[in-house]
Amino acid sequence: MRKIRKIVSAHRKKVGLPPGEPVFVGSRKVEKVRIDVIDYTQSGFNEKVDCSITEAVNFAAGESVTWINVIGIHNTDIVTEIGRTLNLHPLTIEDIVNTGQRPKTEEFTGYIFLVMKMMTFNEKIRDIDVEHVSLILGKNYVISFQEREGDVFDPLRKRIRTGAGRVRTSGSDYLAYTLMDSVIDNYFVALEFIGDYIEETEDLILAEAEPEHMKEIYRLKRSVLLLRKAVWPLREELNSLGNSQSVLIHQETDRYIRNLYDHTIQVIDMVETQRDLLAGMHDTYLTVVSNRMNDIMKVLTIIATIFIPLTFIAGVYGMNFHFMPELALKWTYPAVLLIMLLVAMGMIWFFKRKKWF
Amino acid sequence: MRKIRKIVSAHRKKVGLPPGEPVFVGSRKVEKVRIDVIDYTQSGFNEKVDCSITEAVNFAAGESVTWINVIGIHNTDIVTEIGRTLNLHPLTIEDIVNTGQRPKTEEFTGYIFLVMKMMTFNEKIRDIDVEHVSLILGKNYVISFQEREGDVFDPLRKRIRTGAGRVRTSGSDYLAYTLMDSVIDNYFVALEFIGDYIEETEDLILAEAEPEHMKEIYRLKRSVLLLRKAVWPLREELNSLGNSQSVLIHQETDRYIRNLYDHTIQVIDMVETQRDLLAGMHDTYLTVVSNRMNDIMKVLTIIATIFIPLTFIAGVYGMNFHFMPELALKWTYPAVLLIMLLVAMGMIWFFKRKKWF
Amino acid sequence: MRKIRKIVSAHRKKVGLPPGEPVFVGSRKVEKVRIDVIDYTQSGFNEKVDCSITEAVNFAAGESVTWINVIGIHNTDIVTEIGRTLNLHPLTIEDIVNTGQRPKTEEFTGYIFLVMKMMTFNEKIRDIDVEHVSLILGKNYVISFQEREGDVFDPLRKRIRTGAGRVRTSGSDYLAYTLMDSVIDNYFVALEFIGDYIEETEDLILAEAEPEHMKEIYRLKRSVLLLRKAVWPLREELNSLGNSQSVLIHQETDRYIRNLYDHTIQVIDMVETQRDLLAGMHDTYLTVVSNRMNDIMKVLTIIATIFIPLTFIAGVYGMNFHFMPELALKWTYPAVLLIMLLVAMGMIWFFKRKKWF
Amino acid sequence: MRKIRKIVSAHRKKVGLPPGEPVFVGSRKVEKVRIDVIDYTQSGFNEKVDCSITEAVNFAAGESVTWINVIGIHNTDIVTEIGRTLNLHPLTIEDIVNTGQRPKTEEFTGYIFLVMKMMTFNEKIRDIDVEHVSLILGKNYVISFQEREGDVFDPLRKRIRTGAGRVRTSGSDYLAYTLMDSVIDNYFVALEFIGDYIEETEDLILAEAEPEHMKEIYRLKRSVLLLRKAVWPLREELNSLGNSQSVLIHQETDRYIRNLYDHTIQVIDMVETQRDLLAGMHDTYLTVVSNRMNDIMKVLTIIATIFIPLTFIAGVYGMNFHFMPELALKWTYPAVLLIMLLVAMGMIWFFKRKKWF
Amino acid sequence: MRKIRKIVSAHRKKVGLPPGEPVFVGSRKVEKVRIDVIDYTQSGFNEKVDCSITEAVNFAAGESVTWINVIGIHNTDIVTEIGRTLNLHPLTIEDIVNTGQRPKTEEFTGYIFLVMKMMTFNEKIRDIDVEHVSLILGKNYVISFQEREGDVFDPLRKRIRTGAGRVRTSGSDYLAYTLMDSVIDNYFVALEFIGDYIEETEDLILAEAEPEHMKEIYRLKRSVLLLRKAVWPLREELNSLGNSQSVLIHQETDRYIRNLYDHTIQVIDMVETQRDLLAGMHDTYLTVVSNRMNDIMKVLTIIATIFIPLTFIAGVYGMNFHFMPELALKWTYPAVLLIMLLVAMGMIWFFKRKKWF
Repeated sequence: MRKIRKIVSAHRKKVGLPPGEPVFVGSRKVEKVRIDVIDYTQSGFNEKVDCSITEAVNFAAGESVTWINVIGIHNTDIVTEIGRTLNLHPLTIEDIVNTGQRPKTEEFTGYIFLVMKMMTFNEKIRDIDVEHVSLILGKNYVISFQEREGDVFDPLRKRIRTGAGRVRTSGSDYLAYTLMDSVIDNYFVALEFIGDYIEETEDLILAEAEPEHMKEIYRLKRSVLLLRKAVWPLREELNSLGNSQSVLIHQETDRYIRNLYDHTIQVIDMVETQRDLLAGMHDTYLTVVSNRMNDIMKVLTIIATIFIPLTFIAGVYGMNFHFMPELALKWTYPAVLLIMLLVAMGMIWFFKRKKWF
Repeated sequence: MRKIRKIVSAHRKKVGLPPGEPVFVGSRKVEKVRIDVIDYTQSGFNEKVDCSITEAVNFAAGESVTWINVIGIHNTDIVTEIGRTLNLHPLTIEDIVNTGQRPKTEEFTGYIFLVMKMMTFNEKIRDIDVEHVSLILGKNYVISFQEREGDVFDPLRKRIRTGAGRVRTSGSDYLAYTLMDSVIDNYFVALEFIGDYIEETEDLILAEAEPEHMKEIYRLKRSVLLLRKAVWPLREELNSLGNSQSVLIHQETDRYIRNLYDHTIQVIDMVETQRDLLAGMHDTYLTVVSNRMNDIMKVLTIIATIFIPLTFIAGVYGMNFHFMPELALKWTYPAVLLIMLLVAMGMIWFFKRKKWF
Repeated sequence: MRKIRKIVSAHRKKVGLPPGEPVFVGSRKVEKVRIDVIDYTQSGFNEKVDCSITEAVNFAAGESVTWINVIGIHNTDIVTEIGRTLNLHPLTIEDIVNTGQRPKTEEFTGYIFLVMKMMTFNEKIRDIDVEHVSLILGKNYVISFQEREGDVFDPLRKRIRTGAGRVRTSGSDYLAYTLMDSVIDNYFVALEFIGDYIEETEDLILAEAEPEHMKEIYRLKRSVLLLRKAVWPLREELNSLGNSQSVLIHQETDRYIRNLYDHTIQVIDMVETQRDLLAGMHDTYLTVVSNRMNDIMKVLTIIATIFIPLTFIAGVYGMNFHFMPELALKWTYPAVLLIMLLVAMGMIWFFKRKKWF
Repeated sequence: MRKIRKIVSAHRKKVGLPPGEPVFVGSRKVEKVRIDVIDYTQSGFNEKVDCSITEAVNFAAGESVTWINVIGIHNTDIVTEIGRTLNLHPLTIEDIVNTGQRPKTEEFTGYIFLVMKMMTFNEKIRDIDVEHVSLILGKNYVISFQEREGDVFDPLRKRIRTGAGRVRTSGSDYLAYTLMDSVIDNYFVALEFIGDYIEETEDLILAEAEPEHMKEIYRLKRSVLLLRKAVWPLREELNSLGNSQSVLIHQETDRYIRNLYDHTIQVIDMVETQRDLLAGMHDTYLTVVSNRMNDIMKVLTIIATIFIPLTFIAGVYGMNFHFMPELALKWTYPAVLLIMLLVAMGMIWFFKRKKWF
Repeated sequence: MRKIRKIVSAHRKKVGLPPGEPVFVGSRKVEKVRIDVIDYTQSGFNEKVDCSITEAVNFAAGESVTWINVIGIHNTDIVTEIGRTLNLHPLTIEDIVNTGQRPKTEEFTGYIFLVMKMMTFNEKIRDIDVEHVSLILGKNYVISFQEREGDVFDPLRKRIRTGAGRVRTSGSDYLAYTLMDSVIDNYFVALEFIGDYIEETEDLILAEAEPEHMKEIYRLKRSVLLLRKAVWPLREELNSLGNSQSVLIHQETDRYIRNLYDHTIQVIDMVETQRDLLAGMHDTYLTVVSNRMNDIMKVLTIIATIFIPLTFIAGVYGMNFHFMPELALKWTYPAVLLIMLLVAMGMIWFFKRKKWF
């Protein structure tokens, strides 16, 4: 709930502002905006942490491939400045800082703008952390905007430094692709964590079915819902990227984008499977609870129906009428006890035959 | 319910009338129809409150961009007169006053006709107020028709006066876009209010689950349904506006319309999420209620099943048979009390083992 | 149910007949087939009630616009004769009398064939009356086939006589449009009646929730289902009519057909909303019933759980053991009564604390 | 269930066989394969029952229209021989004998291949009999393959003999159309039978709601499911047949195929309506059952809650304390009886006020 | 659950690796990778079991049709080597070993890449075994990659050896088709096994409805879900293969691919039918359970409501008031017994009339 409200709340801030005005609508996640640059060619690379906007833009202007990573988007001034220097459209700048923006692809003159959601499973709060990630794919550069520092792109950095894989020998489009690939690979990890909790919760429910498990199911449902909202538009995004005629994307990269599309379909498949499983677990919970209630009710029925008639018989011979001739007979007490036993046994036999217990 | 009936009811008035006859089918919300005009160029602006139709039309005829805002549409004569003066199609005039009309875009010779629904959350009645808003986008003018005075367009007016943003330097199409943007921005506010009530109601349900909460859920469901009905056709409307080949829309504005389309998708996403949440809350309610019922039933079962056999034993020794030798023995009374205690403890142990309480 | 069976039943009559053979499958609703003609030009009109087929066809042959209204379609011979004289396709004639035919548009050489369903709410039986209406739009004439006399087209007749609206100055296509408009306007009236009953039933359910209300919901659901089946294909019909390239439809009429299409979408919207409301009412009913059951069960639980232990205590001191020393003590009777009171109060306190009542 | 398994079972036989190998997967329904031929022109006709393959093929080779009806498809050799003589594709032959094949249209060089399902309601077993019917539409001939003899095509035969309708004056495409029309007309009959049982079952449920009615609903649901599976692909089949550019289908027949398409849509409509009704009946059943349970529970509650406190009072005065001064008073017995009466009446008044009975 | 997790788990391994890096994500199912080759022309064939990569590739280079079957894909080095020798794209190699990959068709220069899932029903664990199968269709060769040895392709091998069917006279495209046909034929077998268990479980539920049957339903649902996930993308795959313009597929094979498409639709139909049946069984289970609960509750009600008033009467005459004149009368004891009998019989008559038992 909190997460959904936050997005809405953010929008309330924007009411009345002119369109295209960048407004950060998320919650600030880092202290200071930091810009990291890696610039590389097939033969070498140049890395610079926490550099200025001018430095970063100078790197981007060169022929070598430049990856500018901006950490922290709460400072709209810095983002606007980067945008102006690189000739980004005002709407692009607005979408970079608008954490409520859905994943999408948009082509502008000179660059392609990509929005994604980074989903990481936070084990502490047993919930998903959503991060707004934007990519600007230009001729020789890629700019990535993140809300907070993370280690998702670290393996890629290592590969650039060591020259492993195809990244050093390819253009900026391949770099953008590997960045997107890193984000999507993380979805699988998030899904695995959720899968673990689903399994764990299912086992607990089959064993006990406490009301807290119901709340756990609701929590998991919301996590899956969040993932679902991030992944479905991604499919559309990759599809329109794959069909794009932009000169920024080389033909060789097309197949890689299709591969990413395949992975997204796989994520969607898994998300939908987990939704089905969670819907089924709700039913399991209700069935377990109602089975237990039925067991309780059966015991009540059996004990009550056995003893109610017996108590009645005892009540009859507890009446104080003066003329109850059987009271005076010696064998009537044991006879009544015997009758009571027979009634009880008859009842039990009847229940057994009906398979009630 | 009331809201839905009103629309239908309105239509009953129209049965038998020739098509294209303007009939106001809503409930009158202002006393008098008022026409406000703002006329502006890049260099200056001219504002006039409560002017006559002729004045308004004269403004529209000039080269400068003119925004004519008509407040109150219950007086069909005035709307018809404006329509005739500006050469609007009879069906356009009919749709302007027909508050039952769904959001849509229609291109006519010389102008584009746009229908929207303004949704504002009325905190007093905890429900959504729907207002029928129509826009006529002509070459140098935009006419907006509202049901009642509101402050939604005030920030825009201020921007025109101060020359902030792009509005003063752009044409009538950009003006129409900012008007639509204002309306859609308000949806986020309405969604936030509904989100607040959803959260509040959920907390109450988890704590108590009273029948009134059920009614609250139904009321919220209807609000969301209303929003949904306003937003879904809007998506189609913006799509066909974006694909329009009309000369009235400059190419630069296209991207802004796409941006609006994106916002609409976001609203739809949120509305669907709130629907899911409300559907889930219904289940939560039923689960909480049934959990409570189960607790009550368990207590009944346990107390009844413990005491029914004990009462039977007491009943046996309350019988008045003359020959019940154990009655005369000294130790039988405490023995029976002990047996009763053992039976009760055995029962409790059995229930505990079965995890029934 | 009855209505659905009737349609099927009708089809059973047709098994084995050659295709294109006209068979009336409805129930006869008027005694005698009657043909009414209104023939008009911009300058005047000519009206004739109950005329012969030859007369009617002669009117149609002229240059003036002719509206031939045939009331009663159970006499297939008359319909066949009209069809042959005007060169209608055998399949058209079959569809005119086949009341099971869904709404559709079909273009033939020389005419367009339109099928619609007239829905009027019959307040006596609190249900919808469905009437099969077919229109033949020819060059200078429109033929309408109705199952029974009705006053739906009366306002149109009046407008033709008085020359109000556009109808007298337009061609046969506009006449066909106004006829369709009249039929669709009536859907709103039917929807309003259903809306009233829905509201009324909802109030009754919230107050009492008797099994009859359940039946009322089912009846309303069927009415809405019937409306739905008439309206959905209409949408398609108007769409294909709007996209038709037929010379019989003037370009000016296109916009009116689009307007009709808009109204149909509105009807569909309302029908779907009423379906949602009725589905929700089912839930409300079940919730109200289960709330009442819960209240009953709670009272049972509370009374039973309070008195069962007390009765046990009374039972213990009703035992006839000779050696029960406490029986002889003076203060034990009031002490036991006091204990009983304390047990009862303890129970009530426990239930209150658990918020069970 | 049985029916579904049979289809699957059939397929198990085919595993490992080369594709295109004809395997009969149904259950043999006639003893001997029989070939009937009717050969006709506008002027006369020639009928031959139980003729040889050579004879049949000779008829087909002539200029007159030939209808070859093959009854019994379990003998794959005969079907294969017919296929080879007429130059049918191996996959066509495979599909003719494969009773698991869905309805479809396929164009081959020289002929169009059509697969349908004949659905007849078997009143004895109160279930639908499915029969696999294939049609080969060639230049001057139509071959129909049926699983068993039936009287569905008898009216058509009569029409050919008497020359009624258009069939004798039209080509083989019209013959194929009338054969399909006969099959589809029979769906209406099957639907009527199911409709009757639905209505009957509904009345029984409203009166009693026995568990057997539940099973009846499940049985009806399966029948409707079966019909549904036969009809939905038929729609597609007729659509692609209507859009076919084949020279085998004359332009005049197109309209008849569209008519058939319309009928199929009607069948689909009815099937979906019956599905809705059956789904609703399930709810009705559950509601009736739960209403009855509620009535039972209410009686239990009322009787128990009235008598439990009274029994307690009686129990108190059945205690054997020596010092219970009220026992000795003359008026206490009637007083206690009166108190009991007042308690009972108070309870009843309370329940009445709560509208519990 | 286990199966779903495994796929996710597999993906976790891939996080951080460069894209296109082959990673085996399944569980190793055979000890050693084995390569079998069958090379054939119309006139003869050549078979070699467990040959080296070089041998296999040499076969593929010839003009004769070569089928290379690779058993075991856990050794990514061997797969990579085969891929490099035959010029396969890195992404193809990645997908061959990625058991999480969905069924798909992808065209590369020189070959078509096909992914399928082999589904075999494992009777021991009463669940479906999923195997990842990839096909490379080259000019004169087909390479199939399997996870483990199986007998699914044995009938095909026999047909190649004996020259039965069309396979020896056709090209590599027909070979690929027969391989796919074998896989799809096996789906029918898996469906039959599931159908058997569904039927069996249904019978058990109707007889007893134990909680284990609920678990059985869940297990069957998961099996059907798994099949569904394998079959739906297959439909798309065959569709795009059928529409492919690749020179690798001869025109004659097109019709066979369409036939395969038909079979896939049939499998989908059956899977959906089984899903419906399983969903219905859940309802049956709940109905059976609730019917039994109702029976139990009815017995409780009837016994309790009959004996509670009788016990009260007995209690009244068990009171110890000194002045209860009726106690001293001779006929009152039998009279009370008679009244008790009458009350009991009245109750029973009342319940019978209400049809409560």
